Amino acid sequence: MSKIAIGPRTVLYPLPTVLAGANVDGKPNFSTYAWCGIANSSPPMISVAFQHKRHTLKGIKQNGTFSVNIPSVDLVKEADYCGLVSGRDRDKVADCKFNVFYGKLESAPMIEECPVNLECRVVNTLHLGSHELVVGQIEEVHATESCLTDGVPDVNKIHPFLWAMSPLNQYCKIGEPIGEAFSIGKELKA
Amino acid sequence: MSKIAIGPRTVLYPLPTVLAGANVDGKPNFSTYAWCGIANSSPPMISVAFQHKRHTLKGIKQNGTFSVNIPSVDLVKEADYCGLVSGRDRDKVADCKFNVFYGKLESAPMIEECPVNLECRVVNTLHLGSHELVVGQIEEVHATESCLTDGVPDVNKIHPFLWAMSPLNQYCKIGEPIGEAFSIGKELKA
Repeated sequence: MSKIAIGPRTVLYPLPTVLAGANVDGKPNFSTYAWCGIANSSPPMISVAFQHKRHTLKGIKQNGTFSVNIPSVDLVKEADYCGLVSGRDRDKVADCKFNVFYGKLESAPMIEECPVNLECRVVNTLHLGSHELVVGQIEEVHATESCLTDGVPDVNKIHPFLWAMSPLNQYCKIGEPIGEAFSIGKELKA
Repeated sequence: MSKIAIGPRTVLYPLPTVLAGANVDGKPNFSTYAWCGIANSSPPMISVAFQHKRHTLKGIKQNGTFSVNIPSVDLVKEADYCGLVSGRDRDKVADCKFNVFYGKLESAPMIEECPVNLECRVVNTLHLGSHELVVGQIEEVHATESCLTDGVPDVNKIHPFLWAMSPLNQYCKIGEPIGEAFSIGKELKA
């Protein structure tokens, strides 16, 4: 198995595609991010890396709050669009015909059309270079009722998608199951 | 579209499944993580959240280095196994029949059988609660030669998988493409 060193680069599979939202100068704005991940379990936290120039980041600094909205495959065009244009130039909420709602934090705008919405309060920020890594505590999760199974968000009803980076550079569906987590490896214990 | 508040929880789709590695007391150990994400583009960085008790975290603190290894679907049992047992009790390298190699950092063990390996140097650590969020600069990427297309890691050759959380709780393949990134949203610009 021949290994080749290809230099430092950002490689990770799969990458999520989420819409992060904030009120910028009092107006809701959303942009698309793949550089994010769960950062802590208890209390629940998520990290999102923002380029310094991002309009959404300006709103996060104004309010100390933001949202993470998980789009379904039906919203793939809107999700891509929100990464292509800046809220400085366009009203993305109007262009995408999003219905915006607010929760307990009051200042973190969320997208009704996205099946899962995380309301986050900033707890930490790291200046890392090209990006600012914002860590938010997930203060509340909102889910579309029809996407729940026994009160829990169900991936088979949410139909999220992922981004497979270059050279494929496609958004992709979640594929077929290949094994039960915390179970299929047990046979190696023998 | 009726929304229900379901309380704070860690919800994100899709979640990666990676094997993070470190030398613990001089011996390579690997464990399985889904709480990770790209943290910065330039220089390339990745974050991984470790429970404080994790054996791998002990090794990261000893060396200031770690690896992130991306398994293919062929390694789903091994990846699950490495999350089920602790390196305190078992030699996971032997149990999984992994071949271990080292790169420029010399102290970050990597798994030859994984098609992509990131060599990381710790640049930041955040104590967030249940977990410690370790941010590592990706100093080198190693890839299996047969998984490259024009020198770039190719998801169609790597065959990575994701973890879809409860209630599905399955590892899943990458599914079918649904649209080109940075392109399919352009029609909303009109």
